[in-house]
Amino acid sequence: MELLSSTKSHGGWLKRYRHESLSVKGEMTFAIYLPPQAETQSVPVLYWLSGLTCTDENFMQKAGAFRKAAELGLAIVCPDTSPRGTDYPNERESYDFGSGAGFYVNATVAPYANTYHMYDYVVQELPHLVEANFPVTDKRSVSGHSMGGHGALICALKNPGKYQSVSAFAPIVNPTNCPWGEKAFTGYLGEDKATWNEWDATYLVENLVESLGESAERLPLFIDQGEADNFLVEQLKPEALEAACEKVGHPITLRRQPGYDHSYFFISSFIDEHLEHHSKALG
Amino acid sequence: MELLSSTKSHGGWLKRYRHESLSVKGEMTFAIYLPPQAETQSVPVLYWLSGLTCTDENFMQKAGAFRKAAELGLAIVCPDTSPRGTDYPNERESYDFGSGAGFYVNATVAPYANTYHMYDYVVQELPHLVEANFPVTDKRSVSGHSMGGHGALICALKNPGKYQSVSAFAPIVNPTNCPWGEKAFTGYLGEDKATWNEWDATYLVENLVESLGESAERLPLFIDQGEADNFLVEQLKPEALEAACEKVGHPITLRRQPGYDHSYFFISSFIDEHLEHHSKALG
Repeated sequence: MELLSSTKSHGGWLKRYRHESLSVKGEMTFAIYLPPQAETQSVPVLYWLSGLTCTDENFMQKAGAFRKAAELGLAIVCPDTSPRGTDYPNERESYDFGSGAGFYVNATVAPYANTYHMYDYVVQELPHLVEANFPVTDKRSVSGHSMGGHGALICALKNPGKYQSVSAFAPIVNPTNCPWGEKAFTGYLGEDKATWNEWDATYLVENLVESLGESAERLPLFIDQGEADNFLVEQLKPEALEAACEKVGHPITLRRQPGYDHSYFFISSFIDEHLEHHSKALG
Repeated sequence: MELLSSTKSHGGWLKRYRHESLSVKGEMTFAIYLPPQAETQSVPVLYWLSGLTCTDENFMQKAGAFRKAAELGLAIVCPDTSPRGTDYPNERESYDFGSGAGFYVNATVAPYANTYHMYDYVVQELPHLVEANFPVTDKRSVSGHSMGGHGALICALKNPGKYQSVSAFAPIVNPTNCPWGEKAFTGYLGEDKATWNEWDATYLVENLVESLGESAERLPLFIDQGEADNFLVEQLKPEALEAACEKVGHPITLRRQPGYDHSYFFISSFIDEHLEHHSKALG
């Protein structure tokens, strides 16, 4: 790991690193905020998965999360949103596919199948790296925004016991059934829509018992959604996840926030409550 | 005034406007954060002056100030850092002069003398516009960062009674005696250094009685300075202002914060205390 920068904030330290990733077969950059408590003890970690076009920096600069993280003694890790070292056809031509838009899946279609394994990176490699190199415990939570909200939900639902809690801001809850998801999944997973389902939070909730057995953990979902979000009706569709949860009795708190849009001004307004939610679960 | 955007945050609203400015003879953009209290009553205003290269957006996106402003019932106004509509020779060639670097003075040297009247804009025109168009009182405070910290200090020191309080993060306290200030003042005010003094906080503090009379208000200065700030020794020199304050008995609280740099991660760490300082003075 190569340290790129180290910046003091709220008594803790924001550090950015570059490292060679096995999952994506290339260099990746991530950021970690270590609260003041990490100087004398191990702290639990919240993984934050960002949305389309973002890097490791957006959340760290705009969410206003460090004050509460420093108070709670919570580390925050932000990965990038896609591999960056390749130059595939169309990889950089649109904001919602390819570079900056990895969608936290393991791609199976050439050429993306070679490197776009953001799911493995986020769920396996990055926690392993973080837990081996920083003063953190093996208690993890996961949250994210939009495409990253989708990522947080699928990471938690597919890995019972791995995360103590999950939350999301304006997540893409049903990517198999919206333009962003259909474009990305076609490009990363191919035309066979049956292969898409395992990456869809709404499908996963509905089929949790089928895939994981009767004893499947039902981790409560905590979601904030702005009612003035431009992407609400066409892309985000929280009612699909809400209906699936109701159908199978999966616990969900879906808060519709009047007047709020899709921006980090929305996230910063409610991030403290999400951090408290995770801190409580992390113990 | 043309409304450019309106975004809900922490129960209040961030609004950006474009308007035709008489002071700078062209279009200017500014942002105002109105806390929730502004829906039912008039609230006091903190003017935030940003540093080199910034626009009205940096503070609003990165300072994490809205949570506390919403709690205290404080509006925040961020002007841009220079006129933007002209295309003078060298105006866009360096980060520390011309566009994005107005230094909150009234330029006297051609061609900048035509439009670079950021002092008049910030002290007179903008408060007039804000107080005529928004639910705010005529109670004002001023703060800023780096070049904007210099701006906040000179605005307050030159206008006794106009502001209830002043604070600054890593201000350029003695611009007549550092490379940033010397370059800017030469370009905006000319070679005669005697004309520079009225724009220098350290000089103004030392000569307050001379310029304003025995009854001159001595508004306390509240300043945070990171000790790991790359610009501390060559550009910022807080010890010059500290010595001037000591010499004439001007009240100053200068906090040297170990480990903090010049970034918004530093500002966000202490902005709550500055907002509380201003709110207390604003009543």
